[in-house]
Amino acid sequence: MRMLFSIFPERVTVMERKTGAGAGEKEFVKEITPRDQDYSQWYIDVILKTEMMDYAPVKGCMAIRPYGYAIWEKIQELLDRRIKATGHVNAYFPMFIPKGLLEKEAEHVEGFAPEVAWVTKGGSEELSEPLVVRPTSEAIICDFYSRWIQSWRDLPVLINQWCNIVRWEKATRPFLRTSEFLWQEGHTCHRTAEEAEEEALKMLEVYREFLEEELSIPVIPGRKTEQEKFAGAMHTYTIEALMSDRRALQAGTSHNLGQHFAKVFNITFLDKDDQLKYVWQTSWGVSTRLIGALIMVHGDDRGLVLPPRVAPIQAVLVPILSKKAGAEVLSAANRLADSLKGLVRLQLDDREEYSPGWKYNQWEMKGVPVRIELGPRDLENKQVVLVRRDSGAREAVPLEEVPQRLPALLEAVQTDLFKKALAFREENTRRGESYEDFVSVMETQRGFYLAFWCGRTECELKAKEDTKATIRCIPFQQEEAAGHNCLVCGKPAKAQVYWARSY
Amino acid sequence: MRMLFSIFPERVTVMERKTGAGAGEKEFVKEITPRDQDYSQWYIDVILKTEMMDYAPVKGCMAIRPYGYAIWEKIQELLDRRIKATGHVNAYFPMFIPKGLLEKEAEHVEGFAPEVAWVTKGGSEELSEPLVVRPTSEAIICDFYSRWIQSWRDLPVLINQWCNIVRWEKATRPFLRTSEFLWQEGHTCHRTAEEAEEEALKMLEVYREFLEEELSIPVIPGRKTEQEKFAGAMHTYTIEALMSDRRALQAGTSHNLGQHFAKVFNITFLDKDDQLKYVWQTSWGVSTRLIGALIMVHGDDRGLVLPPRVAPIQAVLVPILSKKAGAEVLSAANRLADSLKGLVRLQLDDREEYSPGWKYNQWEMKGVPVRIELGPRDLENKQVVLVRRDSGAREAVPLEEVPQRLPALLEAVQTDLFKKALAFREENTRRGESYEDFVSVMETQRGFYLAFWCGRTECELKAKEDTKATIRCIPFQQEEAAGHNCLVCGKPAKAQVYWARSY
Repeated sequence: MRMLFSIFPERVTVMERKTGAGAGEKEFVKEITPRDQDYSQWYIDVILKTEMMDYAPVKGCMAIRPYGYAIWEKIQELLDRRIKATGHVNAYFPMFIPKGLLEKEAEHVEGFAPEVAWVTKGGSEELSEPLVVRPTSEAIICDFYSRWIQSWRDLPVLINQWCNIVRWEKATRPFLRTSEFLWQEGHTCHRTAEEAEEEALKMLEVYREFLEEELSIPVIPGRKTEQEKFAGAMHTYTIEALMSDRRALQAGTSHNLGQHFAKVFNITFLDKDDQLKYVWQTSWGVSTRLIGALIMVHGDDRGLVLPPRVAPIQAVLVPILSKKAGAEVLSAANRLADSLKGLVRLQLDDREEYSPGWKYNQWEMKGVPVRIELGPRDLENKQVVLVRRDSGAREAVPLEEVPQRLPALLEAVQTDLFKKALAFREENTRRGESYEDFVSVMETQRGFYLAFWCGRTECELKAKEDTKATIRCIPFQQEEAAGHNCLVCGKPAKAQVYWARSY
Repeated sequence: MRMLFSIFPERVTVMERKTGAGAGEKEFVKEITPRDQDYSQWYIDVILKTEMMDYAPVKGCMAIRPYGYAIWEKIQELLDRRIKATGHVNAYFPMFIPKGLLEKEAEHVEGFAPEVAWVTKGGSEELSEPLVVRPTSEAIICDFYSRWIQSWRDLPVLINQWCNIVRWEKATRPFLRTSEFLWQEGHTCHRTAEEAEEEALKMLEVYREFLEEELSIPVIPGRKTEQEKFAGAMHTYTIEALMSDRRALQAGTSHNLGQHFAKVFNITFLDKDDQLKYVWQTSWGVSTRLIGALIMVHGDDRGLVLPPRVAPIQAVLVPILSKKAGAEVLSAANRLADSLKGLVRLQLDDREEYSPGWKYNQWEMKGVPVRIELGPRDLENKQVVLVRRDSGAREAVPLEEVPQRLPALLEAVQTDLFKKALAFREENTRRGESYEDFVSVMETQRGFYLAFWCGRTECELKAKEDTKATIRCIPFQQEEAAGHNCLVCGKPAKAQVYWARSY
């Protein structure tokens, strides 16, 4: 059976020295660095060894290799289904935004201008007006919406697009923060403020369900502080996750834009009462950063651990071929593979030039959820052995029961990965009232710190200055703040918040 | 049932005058201009009235609106399936190509340099090396391949990507030629010249089947002349189609790149014989231009005519509501819609504010393959009337038979559209031996002109100078050239070719 994804980790280069002594020499990834030795290096080693990504000649950019891209395709498929099920349709807006358009909205351009790529020449001619490569598409889309929307009958407009984005980042990390990345961005227009708020919250809930059910990643839904929200938005909602190094990651956001962009871009409609009004808008997005989250929530020192719903290969069948029973075993393996067609994404690894043990290591590293072992003795006993990547648990299963048992096992793995990640997050969520304790915890242990806050930006900034931790969100699930004091300044608290050091 | 695609053609703007007298005024599309009155205007009217596309603030760029994008999604889904079925996997390469990389291959850069968009600034800093937005991805992909490929065991590499492309075009036309467009581009590497040739021809055949079976568009597969081939390729293969204005359209291409790029980018592998060799490459692509082809092959003066396989809405159910039997009819319509779930992409148009006649016009304009009429009398007779968009044929069908008969009818429409387009092409393909006849035909009738050619570029260029027609391809299906003379110069012919004026 053809290998869809190549697997030659011993030849995966970390880097090729371009100049100086040793120029042209390649450094190869040997073993995966243990997480507690050097977490950043572990992350890079996993990505390179599993051939998910490669560095591009342009700093901060990446090529998403077939194995990494297959995960993105699954994410797209499953999320797009949910986006469509909530009444949205896809479209495609232009990538280039004229300078003038971007600059129409002051907060927006202030937030993004330092990060944009400028196109100044087309062919051999200087352009009369420089163009920006979209860092996000509000400006170009609002321009279209101002022409497309005229009556209340045109609302709501529920449009989404899947596209590439460019943000000229200073510090980049594969999948987590790259100068070019892929995402989906929804942009909606509504008749009333209530509808827009409902939509913003609805899409955050779509994201929450998606992360928890398909990616097995537990998230905390909540609202961003004024300091942290999207440039130009009224409210920003977020889902926050905890990575295995106990840093937080913002996994997705949904913004209630109010009428702010509508006023700037003149998106008006004639309402039922014959009055001309501004629309109420939302926007929301998740990106290839989710792949980084998958690596850092579930991965271990042997490499990737993928939730079955998004694993390109859900099970790998490794026949153990001996001289005596090789042909029979192979034959049985092929029959088993046929019986699983359409039920499970299966790879049969029948390559003769590699030993079973070598194969076990490679597919574990690639994070394949279940390994199916089938050797001469298994064949005699009319069984296979199913081995879980997440727990290492081994289970003998009769051959004819595999088509029922394997899908059920994969679902159990999906759920168990979620439970394990949730338990980890709960173990690493500390509640406290003492600023000294907070400072110490953020320094030595990180994790989430659940505490109360007076609502003032000064306290937020002081905490950031002292610990590098930021308020990740004001969670929807709130305990009563009355009677509690701000972690930082001690004054009466207004809300409960999660602090954390983050990516 | 919610309308997924808005439909307010009376308010679709052709343009809004920016300056001068009448600045700010909008011009609306009234009726669709008949094709024989002004074909170019017909094309624009159809695209705008059906809300498939809108012009962007940046010249030559477009927004693909939901109805147009839904067609692209169907094309992607059906073609991606065939690309995967032939052993390819998807990946994603960076959009930015450093100047130096693009310039490595002389013919390639000569072909594309006048058309590329240059990024010269990131944020507020000038970039040390200007970047090009990909006009096609050979250069950036070859750079990665040179690092990824080392042994014959790494081959073949069969990778495809779906992405956006930018080519700074002088003359643009929505979908047919836009400065930014969407496409897929496959890039493969092989051990031998034979394998590369086999792959290039295999993918052309995938395209041919796809165009003919899913888009109902007949195509002529063949090889491009040296003059017309891709800059840097050894051979370029093409599929050529005839539009209803009797101009040809290049619908897709597949290139055998030989070892040309491999030598420039140093893509080598250690072969089985321990020799270091250069790989043999192919690349192939189709784009959003296919949407333009769909419009111009099947569309008529009432608007779009979509083949069912790619129609976002395959059938529209219009209940005819009278005061007397309105509720019953609506109820029956909803039951019918439920019975068709998962079988047919159905839209139930139960909007009360529009008359049935108005709805018939709109959905015909949108090119929906079949209309289902259900009025009080139909309900009495326990039937519906199925009306074909392509032929206008009406057929009464018992209600309970619709779930079987409608899918079969859609398949019949799919095939009939192909037959009709093939007949049109055959009627407009002229065979000739006289240059004067050729010049006259190209001037007055256009269409394909099948004739013999000596193989020399001078004749090709002379014909182009005199008629604007180019050699579209040297078709695989060839009649023996011996004994025939070149259409242009009269010397002994080497091959049979199709000439045509084209987009």
